[in-house]
Amino acid sequence: MYESIFILKGNIVYSKSASELKVCEHGYLVCENGEVRGVYQTLPFEYGGIPVTDYEDRLIIPGLVDLHVHAPQYSFRGLGMDMELLEWLETNTFPEEAKFQDLEYAARAYKVFVENMKKGATTRACIFATVHRKATLLLMDMLEEAGLSAMVGKVNMDRNCPDYLREASAVESSAETVEWIKDVLHKKYKHTRPILTPRFTPSCTDELMEKLKMVQMRYGLPLQSHLSENPGEIAWVKELCPWSDFYGDAYDKFGLFGADCPTVMAHCVHSTEEEITRMKENDVFVAHCPESNINLSSGVAPVRRFLEEGLHVGIGSDVAGGSTENLFAAMSHAIQASKMRWRLMDDSLKPLTVEEVFYMATKGGGEFFGKVGSFEPGYELDAVILDDSRLEHPQPLDVKKRLERMIYFSDDREIFAKYVRGKRLF
Amino acid sequence: MYESIFILKGNIVYSKSASELKVCEHGYLVCENGEVRGVYQTLPFEYGGIPVTDYEDRLIIPGLVDLHVHAPQYSFRGLGMDMELLEWLETNTFPEEAKFQDLEYAARAYKVFVENMKKGATTRACIFATVHRKATLLLMDMLEEAGLSAMVGKVNMDRNCPDYLREASAVESSAETVEWIKDVLHKKYKHTRPILTPRFTPSCTDELMEKLKMVQMRYGLPLQSHLSENPGEIAWVKELCPWSDFYGDAYDKFGLFGADCPTVMAHCVHSTEEEITRMKENDVFVAHCPESNINLSSGVAPVRRFLEEGLHVGIGSDVAGGSTENLFAAMSHAIQASKMRWRLMDDSLKPLTVEEVFYMATKGGGEFFGKVGSFEPGYELDAVILDDSRLEHPQPLDVKKRLERMIYFSDDREIFAKYVRGKRLF
Repeated sequence: MYESIFILKGNIVYSKSASELKVCEHGYLVCENGEVRGVYQTLPFEYGGIPVTDYEDRLIIPGLVDLHVHAPQYSFRGLGMDMELLEWLETNTFPEEAKFQDLEYAARAYKVFVENMKKGATTRACIFATVHRKATLLLMDMLEEAGLSAMVGKVNMDRNCPDYLREASAVESSAETVEWIKDVLHKKYKHTRPILTPRFTPSCTDELMEKLKMVQMRYGLPLQSHLSENPGEIAWVKELCPWSDFYGDAYDKFGLFGADCPTVMAHCVHSTEEEITRMKENDVFVAHCPESNINLSSGVAPVRRFLEEGLHVGIGSDVAGGSTENLFAAMSHAIQASKMRWRLMDDSLKPLTVEEVFYMATKGGGEFFGKVGSFEPGYELDAVILDDSRLEHPQPLDVKKRLERMIYFSDDREIFAKYVRGKRLF
Repeated sequence: MYESIFILKGNIVYSKSASELKVCEHGYLVCENGEVRGVYQTLPFEYGGIPVTDYEDRLIIPGLVDLHVHAPQYSFRGLGMDMELLEWLETNTFPEEAKFQDLEYAARAYKVFVENMKKGATTRACIFATVHRKATLLLMDMLEEAGLSAMVGKVNMDRNCPDYLREASAVESSAETVEWIKDVLHKKYKHTRPILTPRFTPSCTDELMEKLKMVQMRYGLPLQSHLSENPGEIAWVKELCPWSDFYGDAYDKFGLFGADCPTVMAHCVHSTEEEITRMKENDVFVAHCPESNINLSSGVAPVRRFLEEGLHVGIGSDVAGGSTENLFAAMSHAIQASKMRWRLMDDSLKPLTVEEVFYMATKGGGEFFGKVGSFEPGYELDAVILDDSRLEHPQPLDVKKRLERMIYFSDDREIFAKYVRGKRLF
């Protein structure tokens, strides 16, 4: 009884939609078998005997969802930010990712990543590992152990990267992927799932893409990759795939663009009308990564356009294009980036609001995991309890204002407790 | 002997210029009578008997200089960020600033501001208070007590603000200012100085500007104000002062634009060629406030242009247009804003570098205080010791990279010790 049903009390905040934030002050959040039963201002009679954890005046929000993050890049977060994407990959990323061949190094580096993810407000994440099968499995072991709920991908790359990192052939790359998936199935993880992860079109031959589609069909895996991040990258894809109508089409031609499996594409900064239309048709999720898009001088995605079109949009920290795994920072960066876009580039798209970025970081991205990211009945119970008492203020503040302050300057010190799929982590 | 001369040991980092960062690993910083004598890789023989404080592998950097911050706005930092400047002043700022009429409220609110400034890496600041003489004096008492070195201004406003905040006339505003200066002189502060603070042209009548010039001549005060922040504001100044050639000229016509007293102007986002030329002629300091300029959708100042022209440029947190007093965050925002400007608006100005933003936050802004913001001989000794051990990494990092990480994600937890004008605060 005590394990299967419990109640959290506090100031409950969650999104119903991108424009509607629900606030229930000093309310009750009832959870049964890992799912939300309901949010109540007054506790219904039938829940009378159930234990209540009283978080007093603290905020209770859904766990945050990071739709795009590179675990091995956590080592060099906040470093070497004076380059654009392709130079940055060659200079910073590939040499660091190569180190994960060494399992001892991987264990040391992933430990830092996993510990910090656990301390923060993120409960779900779509994570890129490296090309290395064993190190990827190690990362998945560590995430499972930490109690986070993640989709993790062994990266595929068989061209356009240094020899020390490139997989020898499409055959080897897909065979390693199958081995990795078998290993994962054998592990019987509760919270950790594999996701197919061709790095991006420039690093995957057509032959590899074809083989990955076969792997996807065999194992029914979701897919994550990169899309339309940087002008130089987009021009390169056009050269590599002259037969494609646009960047996303270079995935779609292989059936790797959402048509029959859940797909999330990071960035979509420079997506054309055609690409946006195809994303909508195929239910492709957009992982908006505002800090990364700023740090690598990529630009600012037309997020309001995506929202208005009814696309699925979530937020990604994109460490280490982004400097931090803190998704509150990603939310403030999303607002700030949209303001720069409005002022400097295109005033037809109004800046994003607090409601909108909070929605994207919870329910918007959460949909990639199913019924995740809200406190509506039937949603899986991921919850974070925020204690904002460190951030003193002389005047009274309502709950919505307190949430806005969290978005602008909370860090792991504000994370008081955390639940993933109904289980308390701390 | 022990009080007048001491030595700090650690990884010493400081700017010689905007392009030249000096790093002395495991070096010695010799301080005598509150001033730097020198930085040495090997301690010279003559300093052999002097006590050394060994900060081991930590970083030692000059204290940071905040050229523009509003102390009373600290209460609502991170709130109400969905407006442009003029609406934001009416909705958020003026109602909050009015509360500082009440000294009890002022004491409570300023306590939070001063404590957080003390904990952080800032050692010098140019601070706006409110129109209230007594509350301004209270703030100065608190800053002096905290050991920070600040210039603080009682704000002048005799038009275009709500009745509850407006000073009744130019005569009353200038008379209050004189009373305030007399009070300050009477206090004989060691580290806290008054600075003349007409809020901005829209809130000061021509008559008030004339009177403030007289006050300035009588007491020889420096001056701080706002300039060319927002298109709506600039158009308004043109209406209010049709005789001015450009916004800065509306100050200069009254002799309040640097020609004969040190002057710092915040923002300069939309400064015209004429205005930039005049700033250069008059040695006006620019307080670049990148986060505020993003949050209030003002735009991005052409900072590289200012640096190339040889203007004095420092950094301002501009709380509460900026959400945080943390100047490391302001540095990363400066880099990020310059990248958005480059990508979205004008690719003739390359993004700012780590060296440049660190220079602006130390020596660039420090020059407004005299020989401040560097460890070259003769500079006043403001130093901050950074302990970055919380931010784990699996690979070795050199000192410059460790500094870059501090810029992207340090907070008050990294501030291990702090010295202002040769005195250790903690």
